[in-house]
Amino acid sequence: MNITDLASAVDTGWMLIGAALVFFMQAGFAMVETGFTRAKNAGNIIMKNLMDFCLGTPLFWLIGFGLMFGAGGKFIGTIDLFADGVVGEGYNWGTLIFQTVFCATAATIVSGAMAERTKFSAYCVYSAIISAVIYPVSGHWIWGGGWLSELGFHDFAGSAAVHLVGGVAAFVGAKILGARIGKYDKYGKPKAIPGHSLTLGALGVFILWFCWFGFNGGSTIALSNGADETAARVFVTTNLSATMATVTVLAITWIRYKKPDISMTLNGSLAGLVAVTACCDTVTPMGAAAIGIIAGFVVVFGIEFIDQKLKIDDPVGAIGVHGMCGAVGTLLVGVFGYYEYGTNNVNSVGLIYGGGFNALVVQFIGVISVIVWVTVTMTIAFLIIKNTMGLRVSKEEEILGLDIQEHGITSAYADFMPIPQVLGTKAGEKLAESLEYDVARETIPVIKLNSEEESKIHKIVIVTKHSRLEALKEAMNNIGVTGMTVTNVMGVGQQMGAGEYYRGAKLDVTLLPKIKMEIIVTAIPVETVVNTAKDVLYTGHIGDGKIFIYNVENVVKVRTGETGYNALQD
Amino acid sequence: MNITDLASAVDTGWMLIGAALVFFMQAGFAMVETGFTRAKNAGNIIMKNLMDFCLGTPLFWLIGFGLMFGAGGKFIGTIDLFADGVVGEGYNWGTLIFQTVFCATAATIVSGAMAERTKFSAYCVYSAIISAVIYPVSGHWIWGGGWLSELGFHDFAGSAAVHLVGGVAAFVGAKILGARIGKYDKYGKPKAIPGHSLTLGALGVFILWFCWFGFNGGSTIALSNGADETAARVFVTTNLSATMATVTVLAITWIRYKKPDISMTLNGSLAGLVAVTACCDTVTPMGAAAIGIIAGFVVVFGIEFIDQKLKIDDPVGAIGVHGMCGAVGTLLVGVFGYYEYGTNNVNSVGLIYGGGFNALVVQFIGVISVIVWVTVTMTIAFLIIKNTMGLRVSKEEEILGLDIQEHGITSAYADFMPIPQVLGTKAGEKLAESLEYDVARETIPVIKLNSEEESKIHKIVIVTKHSRLEALKEAMNNIGVTGMTVTNVMGVGQQMGAGEYYRGAKLDVTLLPKIKMEIIVTAIPVETVVNTAKDVLYTGHIGDGKIFIYNVENVVKVRTGETGYNALQD
Amino acid sequence: MNITDLASAVDTGWMLIGAALVFFMQAGFAMVETGFTRAKNAGNIIMKNLMDFCLGTPLFWLIGFGLMFGAGGKFIGTIDLFADGVVGEGYNWGTLIFQTVFCATAATIVSGAMAERTKFSAYCVYSAIISAVIYPVSGHWIWGGGWLSELGFHDFAGSAAVHLVGGVAAFVGAKILGARIGKYDKYGKPKAIPGHSLTLGALGVFILWFCWFGFNGGSTIALSNGADETAARVFVTTNLSATMATVTVLAITWIRYKKPDISMTLNGSLAGLVAVTACCDTVTPMGAAAIGIIAGFVVVFGIEFIDQKLKIDDPVGAIGVHGMCGAVGTLLVGVFGYYEYGTNNVNSVGLIYGGGFNALVVQFIGVISVIVWVTVTMTIAFLIIKNTMGLRVSKEEEILGLDIQEHGITSAYADFMPIPQVLGTKAGEKLAESLEYDVARETIPVIKLNSEEESKIHKIVIVTKHSRLEALKEAMNNIGVTGMTVTNVMGVGQQMGAGEYYRGAKLDVTLLPKIKMEIIVTAIPVETVVNTAKDVLYTGHIGDGKIFIYNVENVVKVRTGETGYNALQD
Repeated sequence: MNITDLASAVDTGWMLIGAALVFFMQAGFAMVETGFTRAKNAGNIIMKNLMDFCLGTPLFWLIGFGLMFGAGGKFIGTIDLFADGVVGEGYNWGTLIFQTVFCATAATIVSGAMAERTKFSAYCVYSAIISAVIYPVSGHWIWGGGWLSELGFHDFAGSAAVHLVGGVAAFVGAKILGARIGKYDKYGKPKAIPGHSLTLGALGVFILWFCWFGFNGGSTIALSNGADETAARVFVTTNLSATMATVTVLAITWIRYKKPDISMTLNGSLAGLVAVTACCDTVTPMGAAAIGIIAGFVVVFGIEFIDQKLKIDDPVGAIGVHGMCGAVGTLLVGVFGYYEYGTNNVNSVGLIYGGGFNALVVQFIGVISVIVWVTVTMTIAFLIIKNTMGLRVSKEEEILGLDIQEHGITSAYADFMPIPQVLGTKAGEKLAESLEYDVARETIPVIKLNSEEESKIHKIVIVTKHSRLEALKEAMNNIGVTGMTVTNVMGVGQQMGAGEYYRGAKLDVTLLPKIKMEIIVTAIPVETVVNTAKDVLYTGHIGDGKIFIYNVENVVKVRTGETGYNALQD
Repeated sequence: MNITDLASAVDTGWMLIGAALVFFMQAGFAMVETGFTRAKNAGNIIMKNLMDFCLGTPLFWLIGFGLMFGAGGKFIGTIDLFADGVVGEGYNWGTLIFQTVFCATAATIVSGAMAERTKFSAYCVYSAIISAVIYPVSGHWIWGGGWLSELGFHDFAGSAAVHLVGGVAAFVGAKILGARIGKYDKYGKPKAIPGHSLTLGALGVFILWFCWFGFNGGSTIALSNGADETAARVFVTTNLSATMATVTVLAITWIRYKKPDISMTLNGSLAGLVAVTACCDTVTPMGAAAIGIIAGFVVVFGIEFIDQKLKIDDPVGAIGVHGMCGAVGTLLVGVFGYYEYGTNNVNSVGLIYGGGFNALVVQFIGVISVIVWVTVTMTIAFLIIKNTMGLRVSKEEEILGLDIQEHGITSAYADFMPIPQVLGTKAGEKLAESLEYDVARETIPVIKLNSEEESKIHKIVIVTKHSRLEALKEAMNNIGVTGMTVTNVMGVGQQMGAGEYYRGAKLDVTLLPKIKMEIIVTAIPVETVVNTAKDVLYTGHIGDGKIFIYNVENVVKVRTGETGYNALQD
Repeated sequence: MNITDLASAVDTGWMLIGAALVFFMQAGFAMVETGFTRAKNAGNIIMKNLMDFCLGTPLFWLIGFGLMFGAGGKFIGTIDLFADGVVGEGYNWGTLIFQTVFCATAATIVSGAMAERTKFSAYCVYSAIISAVIYPVSGHWIWGGGWLSELGFHDFAGSAAVHLVGGVAAFVGAKILGARIGKYDKYGKPKAIPGHSLTLGALGVFILWFCWFGFNGGSTIALSNGADETAARVFVTTNLSATMATVTVLAITWIRYKKPDISMTLNGSLAGLVAVTACCDTVTPMGAAAIGIIAGFVVVFGIEFIDQKLKIDDPVGAIGVHGMCGAVGTLLVGVFGYYEYGTNNVNSVGLIYGGGFNALVVQFIGVISVIVWVTVTMTIAFLIIKNTMGLRVSKEEEILGLDIQEHGITSAYADFMPIPQVLGTKAGEKLAESLEYDVARETIPVIKLNSEEESKIHKIVIVTKHSRLEALKEAMNNIGVTGMTVTNVMGVGQQMGAGEYYRGAKLDVTLLPKIKMEIIVTAIPVETVVNTAKDVLYTGHIGDGKIFIYNVENVVKVRTGETGYNALQD
């Protein structure tokens, strides 16, 4: 055995460790995306994150790797089915697996921005398109010997090639898809829709950060011949940028929102990681810290801009983190570039080191090219999907949660009962109008109650489905009922519609989640409340619910000490 | 320093990284197994996963390593206490830790199949037996220079040595243990018992997949002398098989169950990983893809077969994933074997490459041998345990959850209240019969109510323990009560039976979880409902519960508009 | 390329992999600490774990690295801003990142012991102090060429330098901070406060264990020149100590508490890892097993001692695990030292190998020095913080949870409703007294009810805030009401106080979590209950709650068959 072979073995080992870590990013993305969204969609998001990798891997092998690394022209590689030709001529199996996991990262970014409302089948299709074609083509420009690399464009580990591609696709997708129900009120003001597990979200961020040492550090694809020094520097710069971005976001949110915002700060860590990815090999630690600070500002104001000005609903902040920070980080190569690309020599291409605007211009051309390429192709892809198979789930499905309709499970957390969702008032009103049931309202008979007595206090209890809570609350507000108490209950005995399977076994649900709304009235007649509720709840199907009426002896309002009628007035 | 020493150092480093990753599989198994089972057993499963490793490690060091790798005969190694002899003569400390974590993987597979009903003490015993004796002996045959390795049997990273051993032990254990209460109805039809956290389950699968790069890739136990090329190919084939199996399972479940099944698809990923483990070094990427597709079919139909035909209750699918796919993957070496074992040369032993049936026959002999060995020895082990210390927890404990009785905690999720469990009707009926309480039913006095009035609507509220819900529901159904509403409530003021400790401090429970069942009756006399409830709930102990009776003014059924008596009829 | 360069590259690669793993410990600590504490503080703990790393990294780069490794005197290194001088003269970027992640580990240990009651701003400040000054100075003594290293003090991977520093800081902090509300009753007896997710806690332990292979194994900072053999031995000893400690704790808790305690056993794993960290390179596997057993005893009795005798409230056991086992493990170098430090030669410094007391004395001096250094400096630091910005949150904030007030989110688990917290009786009494509301009690008018009828059964329903449950329960007990049922409900329609933001969007809460307490009375007059409730709940602010009174027709106690009045007597 000679030293060249051993060095080559060491380099391959380094690349493979990097590949394993970059694979594990899938876990990080899955945890971030599910943690930052609602429990009712948790299983769906998990599946999307799993499937983008599982579809992307064979497709990248089938065609993507050839398109990206095949010795083709300036704009595209070759059709080299199953990477047969490419592996062998300069590239090896190590390169294939390393590039596969990078490709999958680009694809998985999109799922976060389009979470909680995208059809699973549509997701599979567009995710496959990204892995098979979109990513490989711009990847060829940057890393496969294409025109951008010939120009001297520098993107060490993929701020542009991976993150910007994913972020732009996420932007186009979220725009075409539209916002989640309840995200914007009728004045267009964004509402917060908190995620269901900040601990899982944070775990995801830690996993991603850990794996980023493989993403950036592994991108030296070698340790020998001085690459170890670059790798060490990459570890330092990557880590510094991430920490400075986190601290920056913490400070910004503390000042702007009065409290240090947890999920935005977690986004901040990712922002710093994305931004430094293009230039982690070429910047000094000081440069990396500066990039982190810049990324912190970009991600907070970027996410606010997308959320509040563009009114694009991105549940996890993927556009801000991967798109915006990916673009900015790529540009900053032209500002903070100091070491010669991929070596330990100094060449100072960065603006602040007197390198002039050359590098910055090239970086700018690269960023714009990637944005244009992905925007055009993904717009076409999404519009075709939208107009053929459909991109978005139905409104009812979105409210119930995608886990139920798309995957046939009642919840990803079967042993726990989620809090019923109530949207902001105006959003709910709009929703109540827009949900269409197969019923002509005028056919609902008005209920006459014969047990009604005057001048008494009554409790009206309505037991019905979770999904009707919003509309019911709206209707009650409209007739002047403002105080209600809602409890999660379980209706026993009914069977869910047949045909749901869990692991091949029939899923019998004998405890159906329901809500119980309790209303105490004196001034408002019981009949009004009952008929209003009936009007809202009636669909003509089994499970519309029941209404119970009770006597109440007395009511006391603690703050004022008022009793009876007075206690119920605001 | 010479190049041989450096190459050796590099190889050791590679093996150690592999060992760390394979250790981390324990986390993956723990998350998969707890996520796919119920919240009430979450702490117990965590502990089992922890303890199999913690018992297995010292026992494998004490005796197992010698039995497996000691220079013994064809069938067994040597008694070499504390690995003193073996480490030094050809093996080193790196080998010891690498083999230890593999051993622990075999042991941990079993816990999933036997989850939710196995006594913790019994688990510790049989897990120790597997690590100390069962695994090392068949391991000696395969990897320790025993008769199977002399025959030319090939199992690169342990489809047979690890996964099949674990899967067969799981099969024997689950069979002897019997199904969980409620898993099969009285016609033997399997019921779905959904897991409590698909997100944790999915995280576990991602962790396992990540670690599998260490499990398979690390099994080259070297990078030098061309092993790096094998390792790179192993990464590619391992990943391809896993992705193809996942896609295959997704497609099968989508077609068969109408919806893409989340947890089965996650099993699919593991199936592909297990199957390719024996042959990841010898197959081409195309072969790996084929193996993945085959594994996808095996795992879905295998799990269905076990669940529905054999009626063996395997909560996490361990038998299908590790046992069946382990066996199939081992056999497929004889079909898809292409590269010379462990090198980059081609030798085409596989059937489809014209290698004839030789390899297939040897693989078959190996699979059968392992199955026989584990079946015989584990049957003896489980039967001895069953007839001495007992293998299964009591019925009451199983219903309450193992965390309470086995570990003295109220829940692994102390701040959240789980949904009370209601089994399918017939299963529940059987359960209500089989639960034996220390009370002669005839001694329960019938309750006479003096406040009963005719022709009114009454609400009967029963507050009692979670564990009685199932029987109560059955009893109510039997007297014609079909509609009930159940709410999770907390009873304040009572103390749990003394003597439970958490981290050495007394565990005072002042909020006891209870269920509140509300029943509205008109036609059925209140006295009938009350006496029936009393009959079911009576044990003579504190905490049997209370029953409250209220007047209801009126009831409205939303769908029909009926009120009063009519509203309550189905 | 020559062999020395390649060896150096291999060594750097090994160190970088170690650094990535040690970084990932942050995820482990975050999961352990959040899992072992309550859901209402989950987001806060996550943030603290994130921020100690994000503040520590730039500060260690700015000043800490120079203080620790600068070629200064015996007691302190140099002021070398941004590690500019140090990196280059013997140390490189790899060392910087490797040391940075170790520093962050020391800092993050403290957050667990001080969890659930420390102000976030105060945390940021003291965490920064530890990373910038405290850790680097004692680190200089041990690893930076300072006086302890000159004495021959041995701490291979940081039982003292990292864990003891963190553990002592945790001890001082927890002592100055005081116990959580409800942790000790008025007799000073400790109460268990169970963590909210044992599965996340266990995941954290598995992550830490996995990463410890990087922490200890990576501390060879090389593979070449025989370091690979040391690394392999370190893997074996580290793993053996952890497993033996786990088994030991399992056995101790099983005997002492009658049940194998889950969270204490998980602490046991960490105890074994911490203890072996100082000596993993110098002990034999047998020595490592002995150290693990000793660590198991130390951690159980140590945690009990801290909890029950010292009455210091350490929610996650950080003082016992890191402080006590760190000290003991460091001392045990002098007992079990066998191999020459960092090599494969035998020198037998350990007492049991006839090495005499020399090593033990030096180790003892080192341990005492570190304890004194950290105790003195951290006491000053904590007292300054306490007397300026304040160290602890307000009582009301602590009861509501730190997520609400410190970070403006209602819960880290927005879709799930936590169980309201009820403390032990005496603790609650004390709390009810100590909570000060801005109201003069005498001004509350007594409520007169006119619907009161004699000799009837009444149900009184009180709907109010979660935070008042404890006091309400106490007050009811005091007037003789012992049976109550509490339900989680949601009040609809109110708005949370303006100004909370989530990711920059307004957080509108339209479903406010409330508790509903139901009390059935006969002997106790309704007016007494109502006025007592009013007295407890009255603050004069909106949201004090409402009280409803209902007739009950009858009550049945299941156990005795008694009805009416008798059914309600104990």
